[in-house]
Amino acid sequence: MPELRKDPIIGRWVIISTERGKRPTHYSHVEKKVSPTACPFCPGNEAATPREIIAYRPDGSEPNHPGWTLRVVSNKYPALIIEGGLSREPVGIYDRMNGIGAHEVIIETPEHGLDLVDLSIKSFRDVLWAYRERHLDLQRDSRFKYILLFKNHGEAAGASVEHSHSQLIATPVIPKRVAEELKGAKKYYEYKERCIFCDIIRQEISDQDRLVAESDSFLAFAPYASRFPFETWLIPKAHISAYTDTDIDMYAELATIFKDILARLKAGLADPPFNFIIHTSPVGNEYKDFFHWHIEIIPKLTRVAGFEWGTGFYINPTRPEDASKFLRELTVPSSPTAK
Amino acid sequence: MPELRKDPIIGRWVIISTERGKRPTHYSHVEKKVSPTACPFCPGNEAATPREIIAYRPDGSEPNHPGWTLRVVSNKYPALIIEGGLSREPVGIYDRMNGIGAHEVIIETPEHGLDLVDLSIKSFRDVLWAYRERHLDLQRDSRFKYILLFKNHGEAAGASVEHSHSQLIATPVIPKRVAEELKGAKKYYEYKERCIFCDIIRQEISDQDRLVAESDSFLAFAPYASRFPFETWLIPKAHISAYTDTDIDMYAELATIFKDILARLKAGLADPPFNFIIHTSPVGNEYKDFFHWHIEIIPKLTRVAGFEWGTGFYINPTRPEDASKFLRELTVPSSPTAK
Repeated sequence: MPELRKDPIIGRWVIISTERGKRPTHYSHVEKKVSPTACPFCPGNEAATPREIIAYRPDGSEPNHPGWTLRVVSNKYPALIIEGGLSREPVGIYDRMNGIGAHEVIIETPEHGLDLVDLSIKSFRDVLWAYRERHLDLQRDSRFKYILLFKNHGEAAGASVEHSHSQLIATPVIPKRVAEELKGAKKYYEYKERCIFCDIIRQEISDQDRLVAESDSFLAFAPYASRFPFETWLIPKAHISAYTDTDIDMYAELATIFKDILARLKAGLADPPFNFIIHTSPVGNEYKDFFHWHIEIIPKLTRVAGFEWGTGFYINPTRPEDASKFLRELTVPSSPTAK
Repeated sequence: MPELRKDPIIGRWVIISTERGKRPTHYSHVEKKVSPTACPFCPGNEAATPREIIAYRPDGSEPNHPGWTLRVVSNKYPALIIEGGLSREPVGIYDRMNGIGAHEVIIETPEHGLDLVDLSIKSFRDVLWAYRERHLDLQRDSRFKYILLFKNHGEAAGASVEHSHSQLIATPVIPKRVAEELKGAKKYYEYKERCIFCDIIRQEISDQDRLVAESDSFLAFAPYASRFPFETWLIPKAHISAYTDTDIDMYAELATIFKDILARLKAGLADPPFNFIIHTSPVGNEYKDFFHWHIEIIPKLTRVAGFEWGTGFYINPTRPEDASKFLRELTVPSSPTAK
């Protein structure tokens, strides 16, 4: 059973999850390449994953067999597990609870070797739609306080399986960074009676110099206090608190601008490792006025990691204005798209 | 001029420092090996660094020439610069100030190829003593709110020069993580009227199962809510708020236990990349009662970085009790020590 432990000083919860199989002697600095022939995410190898939770099967094929275009399964090595109660309890001066949660994998395409950026707008939209479906399903479970959707692309960004996929983790606590965002946005709202993200959008549109891309309903920009070179945020222009409250007609537009940003990063920075994380409102109406969902895309180009981890103090060697200009002005070759 | 920018939502300051020379097209995922023959930190190459701030020269040799056993210089590519005023000002809804600060390099040994762990106790103590000297000097500058001492070991941990060195950054703001620690420790003190770190030390000594090493005046243990496998904290048992308030007789003992921990990490985990950071009290008496200096040592063994960066939510695949047992029970070969 994984365990959640609370840092007694700053109140951060950490997941201790030994089921992921690491033993002291198993660490190694050697990079491992996953063999595509034995890929657990490829059609025909469905038995190598837990049974599918949902799948898109345009040909009406049988569950857990080939024919799918997108597939969601439980993570075989979950950081948190779904069965059980939380059992929060003290351990001397410390706090623990059971590692209850959900950990799912969204297999974005049946085609090994395609990246998310290579998908057609329709397939990219399907991925965004699957995020929404899983989100709506899991938020009915009252044990879960937050649902995190994220993607690791490239080994240096933490991807352990090459076949393109995203992940979902539903947690019994709100992650610290999200809690800080909620708190900061609430404070601003209490003072100004305006959403801070809406004000940021207004300023970015007015300043222009940190914009990466823009569509009717979405804005992509390099945040003013970017922690990382080429960090890019993608946000709906209208005030929408939760990802799942986005108008269903907007997902195709979101897929189009999101694909465009990923194509710019890939073309301009030689297919960098990256992470993206969807920051959405926790379940509940109390965040509606002041929180505004967005996606944070973080290319992993610098290695000054440990110091930043330890102090929360970031050194960014590229001005956001230079990063966004570079991405904005790139001529992106039309990428090969799958069906 | 580097710039400090404040994240308007969660209040984190970020250093935008383009003087470190990165341009959009300069990023590369290829690892670069620094040639030892042209090492700027080797004796004889003193002209390759800014002039020395302090140096230990047992033979009374001339400044900026060979003969030194330890040398402190300004960073040639500083993240923050020493001359100027802060000029804090708004930029629309954002906040900025000039990137004023100090960024120094402590060259720990003249011998290229030796690591900190290989130094004699005397030389290791000299390094800790140089930290103290620089700290005491810089805390007289009222523009600086915090002085960070840290080391990156290995390229994966952010070291860009192979020759063993540590770094000091004096900042005009308190780093976010430190501010959170101060706040959490203060809250605990207000409620319990005891230092939370002193209580942690009591519990760790009583529980025993997270201890890594112990000496008369210091304790090394895996924190209960370790974020990273083999994360180790080193702390004085007595309540001492600032690193520089440590009794001058204790630095040799600190060098001994610190060297022992680094030797255990090196022997047990195949010389892992790591960072350590000295968490000390900011300048001023208001932190004396509730803050307690300590060193956080973080081996960089896992790659699940971006997700954790983005959310503040850590997944640790090794129980701290297993990590500390492994390190505690290791038989460490006596390492080759320099003079």
